[in-house]
Amino acid sequence: MLWSKTFIPTLKEIPEGAEIPSHVLMLRAGLINQVMAGAYTYLPLGLRALRKAERIVREEMDAAGAVELLMPSLSPLSLWERTGRDKAFGDVLIRVELKRQNRKVNSVLGPTHEEIVTDLVAHHISSYRQLPITLYQISPKFRNEERPRFGVLRTSEFLMKDAYSFDTSLEGLNRSYEAMYRAYCRIFDRCCLAYIPVEAESGPIGGEASHEFMVPANNGEDKIVHCAACGYAANLERAEIGPRRPEQPAVTEPAPLERVPTPGASSIDQVSRFLNCRPEDLIKTLIYLADGQPVAVLIRGDHEANENKIRRALRAKEIQLADPATIERVTGAPVGFAGPVGLKEKLTIIADYDIQFMRNAITGANEADTHLKGVNLGRDFNVERFADLRCAQDNDPCPRCSGILRLRPAIEVGHVFKLGTKYSEALSARFLDPSEQLKPIIMGCYGIGINRILAALIETTHDENGIIWPVALAPYEVVIVPVNVADEKSREAAFQLYNAFQKENIEVILDDRDVRAGVKFKDVDLIGFPMRVVVGERGLAQGNVEVKWRWEKAPQLMPLDKVVAEVSAWIREERETGARFKAALYGSNG
Amino acid sequence: MLWSKTFIPTLKEIPEGAEIPSHVLMLRAGLINQVMAGAYTYLPLGLRALRKAERIVREEMDAAGAVELLMPSLSPLSLWERTGRDKAFGDVLIRVELKRQNRKVNSVLGPTHEEIVTDLVAHHISSYRQLPITLYQISPKFRNEERPRFGVLRTSEFLMKDAYSFDTSLEGLNRSYEAMYRAYCRIFDRCCLAYIPVEAESGPIGGEASHEFMVPANNGEDKIVHCAACGYAANLERAEIGPRRPEQPAVTEPAPLERVPTPGASSIDQVSRFLNCRPEDLIKTLIYLADGQPVAVLIRGDHEANENKIRRALRAKEIQLADPATIERVTGAPVGFAGPVGLKEKLTIIADYDIQFMRNAITGANEADTHLKGVNLGRDFNVERFADLRCAQDNDPCPRCSGILRLRPAIEVGHVFKLGTKYSEALSARFLDPSEQLKPIIMGCYGIGINRILAALIETTHDENGIIWPVALAPYEVVIVPVNVADEKSREAAFQLYNAFQKENIEVILDDRDVRAGVKFKDVDLIGFPMRVVVGERGLAQGNVEVKWRWEKAPQLMPLDKVVAEVSAWIREERETGARFKAALYGSNG
Repeated sequence: MLWSKTFIPTLKEIPEGAEIPSHVLMLRAGLINQVMAGAYTYLPLGLRALRKAERIVREEMDAAGAVELLMPSLSPLSLWERTGRDKAFGDVLIRVELKRQNRKVNSVLGPTHEEIVTDLVAHHISSYRQLPITLYQISPKFRNEERPRFGVLRTSEFLMKDAYSFDTSLEGLNRSYEAMYRAYCRIFDRCCLAYIPVEAESGPIGGEASHEFMVPANNGEDKIVHCAACGYAANLERAEIGPRRPEQPAVTEPAPLERVPTPGASSIDQVSRFLNCRPEDLIKTLIYLADGQPVAVLIRGDHEANENKIRRALRAKEIQLADPATIERVTGAPVGFAGPVGLKEKLTIIADYDIQFMRNAITGANEADTHLKGVNLGRDFNVERFADLRCAQDNDPCPRCSGILRLRPAIEVGHVFKLGTKYSEALSARFLDPSEQLKPIIMGCYGIGINRILAALIETTHDENGIIWPVALAPYEVVIVPVNVADEKSREAAFQLYNAFQKENIEVILDDRDVRAGVKFKDVDLIGFPMRVVVGERGLAQGNVEVKWRWEKAPQLMPLDKVVAEVSAWIREERETGARFKAALYGSNG
Repeated sequence: MLWSKTFIPTLKEIPEGAEIPSHVLMLRAGLINQVMAGAYTYLPLGLRALRKAERIVREEMDAAGAVELLMPSLSPLSLWERTGRDKAFGDVLIRVELKRQNRKVNSVLGPTHEEIVTDLVAHHISSYRQLPITLYQISPKFRNEERPRFGVLRTSEFLMKDAYSFDTSLEGLNRSYEAMYRAYCRIFDRCCLAYIPVEAESGPIGGEASHEFMVPANNGEDKIVHCAACGYAANLERAEIGPRRPEQPAVTEPAPLERVPTPGASSIDQVSRFLNCRPEDLIKTLIYLADGQPVAVLIRGDHEANENKIRRALRAKEIQLADPATIERVTGAPVGFAGPVGLKEKLTIIADYDIQFMRNAITGANEADTHLKGVNLGRDFNVERFADLRCAQDNDPCPRCSGILRLRPAIEVGHVFKLGTKYSEALSARFLDPSEQLKPIIMGCYGIGINRILAALIETTHDENGIIWPVALAPYEVVIVPVNVADEKSREAAFQLYNAFQKENIEVILDDRDVRAGVKFKDVDLIGFPMRVVVGERGLAQGNVEVKWRWEKAPQLMPLDKVVAEVSAWIREERETGARFKAALYGSNG
């Protein structure tokens, strides 16, 4: 492609409203253009990168035996009512009223396609002989984002690969899940992302049934927990914590229990300021309703309660924080003054492991505007059970080894999930097994945000000059820059290289613009083509051109007659492995 | 691909609600599945065909120098208000209300993208140096169809290639238009469609500025006019008519003018029944408002007025049928009794050429419930001007040669259109010319309905057994059918062929189902793979297999060890030219 024949509107200034590097750089490099908040046009260079990511995803899905189809964005609301997801999605689901001759048809724009694909399978698959099958599509998805932001990371419209597996048994589901998991690893590896598969909250059928594929990044909206020593990784919701130890030798002398007035101080912050103590000296007492029954949950003041862990510890189907009336009834005090000592009603009390190391703690007194000091386990209160009930924090012990956990912000690029029979039961997707028994099909679902692959890559590998593309995703693999296009010899040599690279099936762009060399170099670095070939008058006089990988500091000279063969070989290697890119950007070749 | 590993839900029965062959066959062959009226899932085979059509379109767009981008479906309503197309589209435009944190955002789902692309260009192109450029995308479009029907021919959601050219001069626009026109011819030729480019109504900048690409088909919703002798073709709106001649020798004796009562008979049908005459004996007198001024337009009773021709003949910007009050004022009679004799107000009267041959005609008497008989031009009324004011009919003379015109139903698959400056002016897309003058960019737009390529092909080339695919669009190019998969030798030979075809990069599917041969043959013909290779026990014993193009009656024997080389060569030829398909289906090789 000649630069002058395509459309690359690079920007010098940082566009208004762009908050994070990937957003700024995608706009500045002329990859995308905003049509409205949360909706972007992919300009020619951006689209080329997007299509490359899409192709990698498609190739690996096909290689894993998944079968591609294409479902429409519009579907009837009635399908979503059958699974209850019209309500579960709430305002995120974009509704559309279609006007037909004599009536209106309520429909939705698909945020994902479980309902549509399950309905399809319900109509066309009826026997175990037709299973297993994994169906997938790569198509636009629509979600009403309350606050679209971070460029293409959070938009109302995005390109998603969604796959759905259909099996006759849990073992089958596990095989399908495993195949998708492995395909995801290959996809993100080929895209040269420094990704981590993390354990995520499991679905209704238990086990380690859900993984998210995360790319650690400063501006990531998600948080993951990671142990550098053994590789254990999980999202914050899911992350286990290793054996707890007291942080300091226990205070040997228990202080007497003391009632202190704390007028108006009900939050951890307020109480610790008022009593001049540290948050970790306090015990939070949270009153939950577990399947409707009130229980008390004790968490150290500086820790964050993890509702999934609490729900599992209570073996409840559903938990929620109790309403103020219930709290007042069971504690005898308004919200903010609950404590394990002297509850008005007899409740089940469970506590996070860290509670066991606390001495002379501070808790609510179950009385308005009052707290207790010198509270001690065993002497003043007892708990029914200790369990892991809180979210992991930086420096927590790893649950798998003797290492420590680190919290890192991350961008989610993929998610694999064992669904079980939720959708097949709601939508009557059943099969006859060999003994003619009718059973619900067992499903899994598997998503990848294609746009996010690009944003996550840029977010984690750019430098102060711009984007740095791996060959696998680059809009063009090689850019040829004649320093002075007005110089006939440079021009001729540049076009000669251009034609030769094309014959080698290298994706090449020639910057044929008649602008200052400085402008070209800035644009070329901003866009981040992996390989730059500079044709200068002085070099040419010696029969040389300069070649440089985007991630290298200095160019190297190469004879004009060798450059196409040499660079083409490098590019072909990089397409496959990305080894140079990974070594330079991540300090590794894997 | 193995048949058992993909998803091909063929149907034996004709699905309910499917009216035309392409719809019936796409459903029965397992190419598509209806999600709701006007929204279809493309199943694996249908998607493969769709992607092939898409790829041909993309290749030819790229070859023509157009640059691909991808605009979002969502865009702000405000953009559409600036061009007035929110009103022009009316209910066809699907509106979506996005809920943001504190406000609602009115947006639309793009039925086409003139506004979005022009706004993009307005922001990023400012100089003649950046022009010309043609931008295109292949993306879903959304239209609220009052009555979705005919399968994928008329849906609420469809895949469209839309291109937009931006030029600095009319000559530039003509070059861009010509390049797209030629690309369209190549596209439809490669897709093996028996298409005809027809002249369509021109835009505001005159000339033959619009063409539709039509595929004649019995169930087409459009009508085209075609001269087999010289190839002249136009849509019904646009078609000119050659020199008119009287259909029979003129009656020599003019009858006396006679006033006859026709109580309640105001339509052509009613009057001709009442007076026992033929519609062609009547003159319709239509009162139009041409830019607000009433005029009378005379059309023979059996002819259809063509408002575009009338507008041009009157040199008006806008015409519309007059309201009843105006009609009553200028004729002195209620609607249905107007005539050229004795109008109450003096009006401009223009007439279609055929009026000049009428003798003793019947017209309204400009009096309620009354008509005139024996009305004669010259004696009883005069007209200001004769012109071509009606739609063409079967057997009309060709405007270009001495042939005759035929009306044919057709399916529109593409449209090229010179837009001029309508959008660039409304959205301030301007450029500085070499003399630093600011001028509006001159635009063209070019659309292809990708789904319609498939439907039009199937509609015109199927037979009683099913679809007949050309190699260029076929979901798979070759199907291998082992008559009996339980026979080890057949199975082995089939898989051997399968692997060998794959090595030749032939798209091959192996019907490995353990079902009766009759079922397989029916399905294979229904889906319409172009080349069938049958591996039978008897043939194998002689070292032979049977090969047959889908459009041939009888198979031919071929030695097992020759078939891959021979068939692969055929397939590669057919991919390029489609010559065998065209010769068999259209009786020509072009």
